[in-house]
Amino acid sequence: MTSVNAGVLIGLDWGTTSLRAHLLDSDGQVLDRRSSAEGILADQKGGFAETFQRVTGGWFDVLPSVPVVASGMITSRNGWVETPYVSVPAGIDELASSLVPFDVSPSCTIHFVCGMDQDPPGGTPDIMRGEETQIVGCLSPGCSSLAKGAAGLFVMPGTHSKWISVCEGNLDRFDTYMTGEVFAVLKEHSILGRLMETGGGPMTGGFERGVSARLDSEASLLRHIFSSRTLALFDRLEPGEIADYLSGLLIGEEVRSAMRDFDGKDDGDSSVTIVGSGALTDRYRVALALAGITAAPAPEDAAARGHFSIARQAGLIDG
Amino acid sequence: MTSVNAGVLIGLDWGTTSLRAHLLDSDGQVLDRRSSAEGILADQKGGFAETFQRVTGGWFDVLPSVPVVASGMITSRNGWVETPYVSVPAGIDELASSLVPFDVSPSCTIHFVCGMDQDPPGGTPDIMRGEETQIVGCLSPGCSSLAKGAAGLFVMPGTHSKWISVCEGNLDRFDTYMTGEVFAVLKEHSILGRLMETGGGPMTGGFERGVSARLDSEASLLRHIFSSRTLALFDRLEPGEIADYLSGLLIGEEVRSAMRDFDGKDDGDSSVTIVGSGALTDRYRVALALAGITAAPAPEDAAARGHFSIARQAGLIDG
Repeated sequence: MTSVNAGVLIGLDWGTTSLRAHLLDSDGQVLDRRSSAEGILADQKGGFAETFQRVTGGWFDVLPSVPVVASGMITSRNGWVETPYVSVPAGIDELASSLVPFDVSPSCTIHFVCGMDQDPPGGTPDIMRGEETQIVGCLSPGCSSLAKGAAGLFVMPGTHSKWISVCEGNLDRFDTYMTGEVFAVLKEHSILGRLMETGGGPMTGGFERGVSARLDSEASLLRHIFSSRTLALFDRLEPGEIADYLSGLLIGEEVRSAMRDFDGKDDGDSSVTIVGSGALTDRYRVALALAGITAAPAPEDAAARGHFSIARQAGLIDG
Repeated sequence: MTSVNAGVLIGLDWGTTSLRAHLLDSDGQVLDRRSSAEGILADQKGGFAETFQRVTGGWFDVLPSVPVVASGMITSRNGWVETPYVSVPAGIDELASSLVPFDVSPSCTIHFVCGMDQDPPGGTPDIMRGEETQIVGCLSPGCSSLAKGAAGLFVMPGTHSKWISVCEGNLDRFDTYMTGEVFAVLKEHSILGRLMETGGGPMTGGFERGVSARLDSEASLLRHIFSSRTLALFDRLEPGEIADYLSGLLIGEEVRSAMRDFDGKDDGDSSVTIVGSGALTDRYRVALALAGITAAPAPEDAAARGHFSIARQAGLIDG
């Protein structure tokens, strides 16, 4: 337990479908990690407090007064403690000064990170909870090219993908795309899923075909997605490729639109940092490459890095 | 039974979710009509033949040799008899000469209408089954402004909306928009439905708001639809208006895109014929008006009119 003894902070990245807990040392390094499928939509049998205590079990025996910072959908209306939003442009200073403390017990306080919102005149509002902390983590010391003061564009693939631009160290603008959820409901519940054969295998050539088709098309998405069915009916798309083709159409739409909106140009001379890991991240890397955009990987454990930076800025830990 | 005695043709408009049967006289007037929810996706306990005989029950007792023409998804792979496609541009001549006869019994033959397809070089294929017959019905004598030889643009609202242009009496081009199905799956299965209160009442102001918002926006649809959630979270959209707002966004997207694609201009100086009836048709009328486009109603019983025209052109009935 030597390593756990050196812990100075617990960070909770608590989202819709999962909870990730990190114990960090005074250099911001991850000493121990736990995870659970008990996202806020899961049945919390004993409530969020019991889940929190079970998932972080053991750490408090050794470190009874370790501070805790939490971010993600746990701060939403259906979460544990609803925090307000900090409006863009803003960054680590605003997030650190607006932490919402909540006493779980006389000896344990969780500091909840506020989500961020954006509400342009004449436009529609957008919101995020959790992604702001990951971006702060990407900008933390040690991630030199992305250090505070830097500018850049980030994508966070997911059920609701976020594109976030950073300017002078602040989150400047962000947009949510419902790409992952639209793909899931079309695949599971629409006629487009009827002809699909999905084996959970590696990404097929259907994905690149879909991305390329969408990058080249000005047709409405409501029309273009129907081609995943007609190409299959015409035997020009294999049953095992249809789902990947549809995924490619949607991710291609997202990449094209985001690059136009954020970059203001469509010449492919750009770089985007992909925050995340796993198969979905690979899809975005492929789609960005097809659009002529250089993709850079984000540092690992971005959320934990963000928790550490915010906690230090707020004076919860030394340094 | 006098009127039934005058029948010269049975027309079957047999789609995915319903079957409509019409008995027509020698002027193409509807003498009698039947309908059933036994579309091709319904469980056909005794098969399509038994459903056909039950729904048309009585007509054959009086008119044992009346000819039958059928169109719609009943001619698809999952239907009764799969017919090939006639490619655009084409019209009544090609549809009449390509009828697919099928003997239900020694005394009864159903003549199935071919669907139509479109497969532009470098584009993606599109298909329809049933709508071609309705368009022929809209062009039939008696619908003077739309008579054979006319040009025009038609929209057929539905699960899969079709936009169809007619030139010199032929169906010239058509595009399918998955508007209705995308709305249904987002409402039923995505996070966008969570905050919705839907009482099945009349269309709320949310619909016009959604149409107008979409007509004015260049944002990706994958992003714009998320505003049905955020506007509600920000108390700027009533729970009872959210579903209509989303419907407005999607129909607004369809109208804007189709007018650009078909009209080649975006000046609102256009007219579109809406084929169909009921509440969904009203939505399209409202959306077209907001886009500055004049909407004309199609003649009633367009499918039956189409069956009559095709049957006469094919020599199945005199005239």
